[in-house]
Amino acid sequence: MEEIISSITIKSESKIVLLVMDGVGGLPQEPGGKTELESAYTPHLDRLAQRGICGLTDPLAPGITPGSGPAHLALFGYDPFNYYIGRGVLEALGIGMELTPIDIAARANYATVDEQGIIVDRRAGRISTERNIELCNLLQQKISRIEDINIIIKPGKEHRFVVVFRGEGLGGGVTETDPQKEGKKPLQAKAVDTDSEKTAAIVNRFIEIAGEILKDSKPANMILMRGISQSPNIPPMQQIYKLNPAAIATYPMYKGLARLVGMKILPIKGETIEDEFIALEEHFSDYDFFFVHIKKTDSSGEDGSFEKKIKAIEEVDRLIPRIEKLNPDVFVVTGDHSTPCLLKSHSWHPNPLLLYSRTCLPDKVNSFGERECNQGGLGRIRAMELMPLILAHAQKIIKFGA
Amino acid sequence: MEEIISSITIKSESKIVLLVMDGVGGLPQEPGGKTELESAYTPHLDRLAQRGICGLTDPLAPGITPGSGPAHLALFGYDPFNYYIGRGVLEALGIGMELTPIDIAARANYATVDEQGIIVDRRAGRISTERNIELCNLLQQKISRIEDINIIIKPGKEHRFVVVFRGEGLGGGVTETDPQKEGKKPLQAKAVDTDSEKTAAIVNRFIEIAGEILKDSKPANMILMRGISQSPNIPPMQQIYKLNPAAIATYPMYKGLARLVGMKILPIKGETIEDEFIALEEHFSDYDFFFVHIKKTDSSGEDGSFEKKIKAIEEVDRLIPRIEKLNPDVFVVTGDHSTPCLLKSHSWHPNPLLLYSRTCLPDKVNSFGERECNQGGLGRIRAMELMPLILAHAQKIIKFGA
Repeated sequence: MEEIISSITIKSESKIVLLVMDGVGGLPQEPGGKTELESAYTPHLDRLAQRGICGLTDPLAPGITPGSGPAHLALFGYDPFNYYIGRGVLEALGIGMELTPIDIAARANYATVDEQGIIVDRRAGRISTERNIELCNLLQQKISRIEDINIIIKPGKEHRFVVVFRGEGLGGGVTETDPQKEGKKPLQAKAVDTDSEKTAAIVNRFIEIAGEILKDSKPANMILMRGISQSPNIPPMQQIYKLNPAAIATYPMYKGLARLVGMKILPIKGETIEDEFIALEEHFSDYDFFFVHIKKTDSSGEDGSFEKKIKAIEEVDRLIPRIEKLNPDVFVVTGDHSTPCLLKSHSWHPNPLLLYSRTCLPDKVNSFGERECNQGGLGRIRAMELMPLILAHAQKIIKFGA
Repeated sequence: MEEIISSITIKSESKIVLLVMDGVGGLPQEPGGKTELESAYTPHLDRLAQRGICGLTDPLAPGITPGSGPAHLALFGYDPFNYYIGRGVLEALGIGMELTPIDIAARANYATVDEQGIIVDRRAGRISTERNIELCNLLQQKISRIEDINIIIKPGKEHRFVVVFRGEGLGGGVTETDPQKEGKKPLQAKAVDTDSEKTAAIVNRFIEIAGEILKDSKPANMILMRGISQSPNIPPMQQIYKLNPAAIATYPMYKGLARLVGMKILPIKGETIEDEFIALEEHFSDYDFFFVHIKKTDSSGEDGSFEKKIKAIEEVDRLIPRIEKLNPDVFVVTGDHSTPCLLKSHSWHPNPLLLYSRTCLPDKVNSFGERECNQGGLGRIRAMELMPLILAHAQKIIKFGA
């Protein structure tokens, strides 16, 4: 499908705004009640729903709850079952590291081992972030390169950090060294395919040297590695869609995901939703595709705070006219997955979807909500089917076949 | 997809009831009329439809009418285009034979041949079932083994019986020996691949010996074999879904299909629908997934009896509160395919679908019927997409990807 889309996309002047309210879909708290979105006062989104066309998207497939990685890949039109984003890669993106396609990224933990090398604490007593930074600096100073591979170390929070192995000939198929329980020795990293033998050797050598450097730093006298994975080689949106895309997001992970598909990350002055809208206004003439990511809808859902989620949705709604004023050719509002306060987690429930453009055929949907969208003219599609639809309404897709 | 699902399913305490009203979907007898399901008085199913979420499933794909085998495989979440259930295997399951993954099963017919070995009656004058049993006993007594292959013979009705070849090294790619018309000699079974050469040799040897044994039993002095096929090697539900599944069905074929995917077949005291519900109640604490199969809705449809089909549906409806009382975490009511009385046969029309659980978002559907379900929140999905959805609502699936 990607190849087909790529063969019929064209460059044009039209502009697209894809506003993703992370985890916006929800559930009633009580049987018979309304969802967060249905409860929110959203006159602007409702007006757009009346003038536009609505529907639902399954993030991946019915019943499958996605992580943020696959959910966003799907929204960007990439088959999330084809491009796997490993834990190490996501963690690296999450702390703002920039990855290249040859990189291998791993989540690492400081841990405590006894004299026999047996793990007595997999989290090194959750050392402070400050101590973590000190130790990462020490490791980085002493290990910047193994053979022809560059090593990049970046601290996260508490005992967590990320190691990136950068160089030619590294495959991503390597097992983890964390035995997942205490009372055991760390495992050796093993290659699961011949392409990854060099990776396994470098990882093991790295851990050996690190163990040597840390030997007097108890409780953080060993490291464990998990989610060792390769940055997926994703053809950029420039190539597939002929777009000049930009991303507006406050959280590093979403910036990282956007960067993976070729988006330029726009600077934002602050951390508020309004700051994101200001960034959109300032850069609106420079790009033709804008991914605007709102985190608050998801984080309030994860907290289980129905009221906070409603407020986040209403905050976005109040700012909607600012986007309308920019007059994008296609304006889409949706989620990447649902995060019902009832479940306090991502869920499999479909995302409400609203598309507004001059070429849409308005349906009978009256307001922007899960159940209203269920009656919408776009029906129920998979999230990865959305991008071609957006491009079509932006007149950026030509006829397939004669 | 199966691998993906298998990688994200987890064991949990929650319980699922999948009530399959075989062939429940239908059509109006007269233009402007109601379907069987729409005509039936179903207050309990209607109440569930109001509190739950509804939709439609295409058994396989739009326009494709399924046999019972693929229809049930799809309901159980297996791609029916990947797993082929041959006629011989289905026939064996249908008369209650238990198959192992190494078995080859064939439908066999008694036939009449003349002195030259030319077939003069492909059905041996439809000999009585009693005579069939006698002859099958005779054959079984005299041929229990050829080389290292065990032979298991079981009579069906009239001139029909089933032969199972059990042993190592048998492939399922063997042509049939029935030339499909009279005036010809029986064909030799031929292997269509190298894996099936041993099967062809054993089948031909079996027919040769059987012909010898039957030579004085005119009109049943020869046998013909069709649908020679291997039991499909389906990964069981225990493995893919981590379920402990049980089936409640009165007809052998459905028990056989359930057994193919690893379900335990529960004993039922009688033959009525209520007996099936009693079995569910008695075993409810022992399993976490229950497939309850209702045959009457289909058989009355095949008979073309609109009134009888309505009665069957109403009989099920009256018993619905017994399932509600058990309080399963997910309760699903649907069909495997439609059987409109108008057509007196299976059809391609989508199945009405009702799902009730604490985590469903109730839609505006007011009653359980084909056209009401068409407005439902689950939209129109393929039957094989249903299992992941059920497992999600039962909280038996974890997030895909990070």
